[in-house]
Amino acid sequence: MIDPATLLDLEVDTPALVLELDALEANIQAMAAFVRARELGLRPHAKTHKCAAIGRLQLEAGAVGLCCAKLGEAEALAAEGLHPLLITGPIVGPRKLQRLALLALGSPGLMVAVDDVAAAEALALAMATHGPVIDVLVDVDPGMARTGAATPEAALAVARAVEGAPNLRLRGVQCYAGTIQHIADAEARAAAAEPVHKQLREVVDALAAAELPCEVVTGSGTGTFALDATGGPFSEVQVGSYAVMDDEYAPNQPLVVDEPTFTRSAFLLTQVVSANRAGRATIDAGSKSLSFDGPLPSVQAPMGLVYERAGDEFGTVVGAAAPGVGERVLLGLPHCDPTINLHDAFVCVRDGVVVDRWPITARGRAD
Amino acid sequence: MIDPATLLDLEVDTPALVLELDALEANIQAMAAFVRARELGLRPHAKTHKCAAIGRLQLEAGAVGLCCAKLGEAEALAAEGLHPLLITGPIVGPRKLQRLALLALGSPGLMVAVDDVAAAEALALAMATHGPVIDVLVDVDPGMARTGAATPEAALAVARAVEGAPNLRLRGVQCYAGTIQHIADAEARAAAAEPVHKQLREVVDALAAAELPCEVVTGSGTGTFALDATGGPFSEVQVGSYAVMDDEYAPNQPLVVDEPTFTRSAFLLTQVVSANRAGRATIDAGSKSLSFDGPLPSVQAPMGLVYERAGDEFGTVVGAAAPGVGERVLLGLPHCDPTINLHDAFVCVRDGVVVDRWPITARGRAD
Repeated sequence: MIDPATLLDLEVDTPALVLELDALEANIQAMAAFVRARELGLRPHAKTHKCAAIGRLQLEAGAVGLCCAKLGEAEALAAEGLHPLLITGPIVGPRKLQRLALLALGSPGLMVAVDDVAAAEALALAMATHGPVIDVLVDVDPGMARTGAATPEAALAVARAVEGAPNLRLRGVQCYAGTIQHIADAEARAAAAEPVHKQLREVVDALAAAELPCEVVTGSGTGTFALDATGGPFSEVQVGSYAVMDDEYAPNQPLVVDEPTFTRSAFLLTQVVSANRAGRATIDAGSKSLSFDGPLPSVQAPMGLVYERAGDEFGTVVGAAAPGVGERVLLGLPHCDPTINLHDAFVCVRDGVVVDRWPITARGRAD
Repeated sequence: MIDPATLLDLEVDTPALVLELDALEANIQAMAAFVRARELGLRPHAKTHKCAAIGRLQLEAGAVGLCCAKLGEAEALAAEGLHPLLITGPIVGPRKLQRLALLALGSPGLMVAVDDVAAAEALALAMATHGPVIDVLVDVDPGMARTGAATPEAALAVARAVEGAPNLRLRGVQCYAGTIQHIADAEARAAAAEPVHKQLREVVDALAAAELPCEVVTGSGTGTFALDATGGPFSEVQVGSYAVMDDEYAPNQPLVVDEPTFTRSAFLLTQVVSANRAGRATIDAGSKSLSFDGPLPSVQAPMGLVYERAGDEFGTVVGAAAPGVGERVLLGLPHCDPTINLHDAFVCVRDGVVVDRWPITARGRAD
């Protein structure tokens, strides 16, 4: 694990989204080795980093493909030559379906998820009109009431609609239980994962009974992958945050004895811009540089400081030995996905030296 | 006021940051007329919209200049030919001071704020080395403990340091009381503004007693401008949110009888992508399209729905008549500044028709 204090003096202006490449590569290799040892597929989720360079490293480490949350994200990564891509969110409306068909023509192995019969029919029609045959997964709701077929019967109906459409190729099912990933206590997280496994198995069994293909069973996340990859119903895992880590995942206890430990590779380097009150200093990063949808950011260096909100442009660090004007403060990412989405590039660092700048290829592509 | 429902069927893909130009122009004209009638200057804050096209409209409506929160924001707007610019946040460190000097050479009327003596000395040195003479304001802390000199004595010391530096031209003082702008109750907000006025008057009086220049007294915001422009110590007002409005400002009661009413000109147009549960629908906008640092977004159309959080990519709308897959949902912006900062462009609309696309020039420029 790198010493965060070594990143304070980087030759870069602030605020800067810093990516420590040794830590990044160690995370990528550790996850790949763990999943490979269990003979499962690894399909990392690019929604976390939105960065073609990181996606390329994940593919080189043996991933079977990359996940994208939205069509726009997939368009951006496909334009950089990354494939095969799975778009995990529903694609709805004639404009998006036409874009999808165009993308499918130039993106080998493109796969999408659908969660209702009408959406499957609209997808089939769009592909018949504009595009090639496309691989399709049935999205199953693990009880989040966000996306996915709500019951095994509903999932079976979607699967039949996909199987019956000549331009769609049914590949299997997807189930992502996002809300249980951040339960810190290992036992409670494992208990929460159990009904998800049970429900997903019911769907897999229903497809088998109906003699429908189900070669891909995909889902999981950085919080539950170790359990999902050990006796769960999955054929592959979708994990995103493990590559960079953040304050939301930091408290998570491991689920299995040989679960790899991932360390932070991404940080926000900031600078004190005002220090006119004892025990406080104002730094140059607020809600335009950090996402405040979850916990407030941890202070990684110097030690003994706590971040407090001070608006869109600034934050305050509070502590007995508050730093002076011009001194640097290194923050952990509070919630990595939406924080990375605020920035245009990663400043890449190795051995305490800035060595590269990686564009956040799909930044802002929520479309 | 436009009917939000007329924006549901716009010819644009979702999620889209929509800007209704009639409402925008009415807001810009109403603020300009109110401030002009009081013979004050108007210096709108571009940190809200970060958009050169909107800044240009504000200048054409008679603004004395534009404010930027950060140096990077000013660089981006100056590159579009907008001036004069005031950078309201502190500029610290040799890299930024060198960039500032370069910017000052090509940005007529550029003005900056400083809040301590050492910062004034560093600024003077950078200007002597790299740049021209630059206009400077002394930033005064209204009690927020964020930026600004903490006492009138400290402000006077900064003013003397500026006045004594041959490359700095002291123009006056700045005081922004951000935390009181969103007090909904008019009486409570007016009461909170009173000590700010008192403190600022003490600084202005101290500069006068020391025979130091203080031609510019700038500050204020969309919550207090009516009071600040009516008998306050200000020579001009910095207002940002009034141009677009949001859910944070919506509950604010007016402070004076002839205070203009500003209406929303910016919205987020979204689409239902999944609807497998009764009374709920999942739309395509979460924390990557909306800032969750303040209230959750209001639903502007259709009526009777409430937005609930559902992660980074999605939201849920809940109500008796929840919309179906493919239907549109128009959201108000929860907190306009950081929400706009998530998007690359405004989709501009007039009479219910998309007429233009305005880049958010300084998006992501928190540096």
